Amino acid sequence: MVQIAIMGYGVVGSGVAEVIQTHKTSLKSHSKNVIDVKYILDLRKFPDSPFADCFTDNFSDIASDDEVKIVVECMGGLSPSYEYVRDCLLAGKSVVTSNKELIAEKGAELLKIAKEKNVNLLFEASVGGGIPILRPINQCLAANNVLEIAGILNGTTNYILTKMINEKTSFEQALKQAQELGYAERNPDSDVKGYDTCRKICIMSSLAYGKHIYPKNISTEGIENIELSDVEYASGAGYVIKLIGRTKKINDDMLDIAVCPMLIKKDHLLASVNDVYNAILVKGDATGDVIFYGRGAGKLPTASAVVADVIDCVKHISARKYLYWEDSSNEQLIEPDDSKSRFYLRVESDDIANALNSLEKLLGKFNLVTSDNTTAVIITENEIKICDMRSALSKLENIGVNIKAKIRLADF
Amino acid sequence: MVQIAIMGYGVVGSGVAEVIQTHKTSLKSHSKNVIDVKYILDLRKFPDSPFADCFTDNFSDIASDDEVKIVVECMGGLSPSYEYVRDCLLAGKSVVTSNKELIAEKGAELLKIAKEKNVNLLFEASVGGGIPILRPINQCLAANNVLEIAGILNGTTNYILTKMINEKTSFEQALKQAQELGYAERNPDSDVKGYDTCRKICIMSSLAYGKHIYPKNISTEGIENIELSDVEYASGAGYVIKLIGRTKKINDDMLDIAVCPMLIKKDHLLASVNDVYNAILVKGDATGDVIFYGRGAGKLPTASAVVADVIDCVKHISARKYLYWEDSSNEQLIEPDDSKSRFYLRVESDDIANALNSLEKLLGKFNLVTSDNTTAVIITENEIKICDMRSALSKLENIGVNIKAKIRLADF
Repeated sequence: MVQIAIMGYGVVGSGVAEVIQTHKTSLKSHSKNVIDVKYILDLRKFPDSPFADCFTDNFSDIASDDEVKIVVECMGGLSPSYEYVRDCLLAGKSVVTSNKELIAEKGAELLKIAKEKNVNLLFEASVGGGIPILRPINQCLAANNVLEIAGILNGTTNYILTKMINEKTSFEQALKQAQELGYAERNPDSDVKGYDTCRKICIMSSLAYGKHIYPKNISTEGIENIELSDVEYASGAGYVIKLIGRTKKINDDMLDIAVCPMLIKKDHLLASVNDVYNAILVKGDATGDVIFYGRGAGKLPTASAVVADVIDCVKHISARKYLYWEDSSNEQLIEPDDSKSRFYLRVESDDIANALNSLEKLLGKFNLVTSDNTTAVIITENEIKICDMRSALSKLENIGVNIKAKIRLADF
Repeated sequence: MVQIAIMGYGVVGSGVAEVIQTHKTSLKSHSKNVIDVKYILDLRKFPDSPFADCFTDNFSDIASDDEVKIVVECMGGLSPSYEYVRDCLLAGKSVVTSNKELIAEKGAELLKIAKEKNVNLLFEASVGGGIPILRPINQCLAANNVLEIAGILNGTTNYILTKMINEKTSFEQALKQAQELGYAERNPDSDVKGYDTCRKICIMSSLAYGKHIYPKNISTEGIENIELSDVEYASGAGYVIKLIGRTKKINDDMLDIAVCPMLIKKDHLLASVNDVYNAILVKGDATGDVIFYGRGAGKLPTASAVVADVIDCVKHISARKYLYWEDSSNEQLIEPDDSKSRFYLRVESDDIANALNSLEKLLGKFNLVTSDNTTAVIITENEIKICDMRSALSKLENIGVNIKAKIRLADF
């Protein structure tokens, strides 16, 4: 029998307890062991829960109990999750977590402790919910150079964009619907501004390239400025707009990582990923494009990924899984200004003919999506550096051209 | 250093050697060991190969060399692959194979030997080429009841159907193009008649449900009778036709497995899987739908999956991976006749009004896709057992209605 503790009995934590209870037989046959929940850490009491006897509000019950070999962290946030996870690892316990903020901020430090203590720190559920993605990346790494990772990593923003694309709902209305359905928090910044996507692309990139990438070093743009008109113009030109987290290997030393809305060709599989679903594209030099799709969040999908990690810990109770990256000061990231892309632009001007003329002079050839007396929508033909785009747009503003929208094109 | 042998230097075998050579550094860092190719078994000589010194045409060189710990089998076919793999396992060597025929026919027997000898038998590349699918299925099993697995598992037939769907090419023309491009063999039966798809769904089902499923027990229908007109009628009704291998859990004891063309709603992600790409849907009770997409065949994708397995063997050189199923007499399969489905039907008759009348009497309500004086195309509203459909169609034939096409609808 292996005794475990669950820290946090919210959506994911209670899901973990539920999956462990409802899948007892298969858990036993797969882990070759009985998994027993000894503690659940939560300040609240749940007298009607089948686990009522397991509750404690005292972390040291768990930390000091040598019988507890595996601790599941589902509290979320950085504190006290960080301190608790660190102390569990230091006490020689393996840890499974679904906490993307924790891994994105403290992954390297915690993996180092896990290595020194010869225990496992697993976090499959932190990216893509129920989609197996970190293991496959880790697996395919050895026989592949990973050239690019790109994903629709946040269900809330994808739900909002899907509403805008398919039902011509405005951003504000779609966000309100997402909140009513419980997909979006009352304070939606973490989703809508791209922070959640950023954490997830940082975790995948850290794993794929072996060095910790810190979210604060990634240029991160959300979807709060996407207007319905841009969704419609993009559609007319054969594109959908999706919030993408993307890492490209520039050369052996450098990575280009960005989080921002991007135009995706409608015939690309990622363009068909709708509602709260997530999808992640991994491009290897040997495998080519591989895509993983599924529910990126939700109680049971996330819980089942956590439980799969728990089983892996049980199977590797005395041997470590190889899942590791080093700390880094992120010198491997190119300057965000040096990132290149094609662009979608919507401009307004009293003199559209002149504006289009200047656009061509400054940005080279483009495809004209639409224009009338006051508005023009174009897609550049060439890739342009962010800094060059900025200086071109500032010149345009100086001659009375208003830049109403500027969105990157995906290059996958 | 771990010494390995590669049996068969065709497309996949030479790809394995290439990936091992071109990814030396990452192989070393991931396997914590140096992988050295000691033998390559092939009747041909390759004097210009960087591995020229490794070639042998004598299997016993490999079987009797105790330094060889891992053997990669890429010969294909059943004999002598089966005897060689069996002898390698009996000699205490781990085996990695890309050979789906071997695993679909002899998996249970070989896994048993591997277990007894405490070595590994891995075969990720046998399904989905470069797509990681067997590991994720194995991983998600413990925390999920797998309710359904359905996939586009054969690149050649998907290429042919894509040509028919997008370019209105006939089956015969599309097959010819596939042969010219090297996607289809001169004798295309294994692909076109569904045998290849059948082997792959058998392997995934054996793994997911723990008991060997033999291809001979699976009702298998290919795409050779799909006519362009059906592709077009289906498209008009909002569907595409794909060759699907599918396993459904009927209850705790019984499975419904089938290989046949199916109509898929155009807005389903699998409908957008084109050309030689593969995609596999796994429906878990906790994760919901998860889809894996990528190149299902080809030298480097397949080779990289083989090499990932080799690395896993190196890492588990003294510990076994848990990947296993028992032999079975396939009593867990329902009678193919009892399988239920909605159906697409195209019928011809001199008296279409009467034919439609009889169709409704025999099959219940249906959606009329199109009809004229001599032809009607319908999609049934209700699921009908195969045997009930057969007897209904025979009654229709008796009253002068010709059944020109009968295709199942996917229920995912």
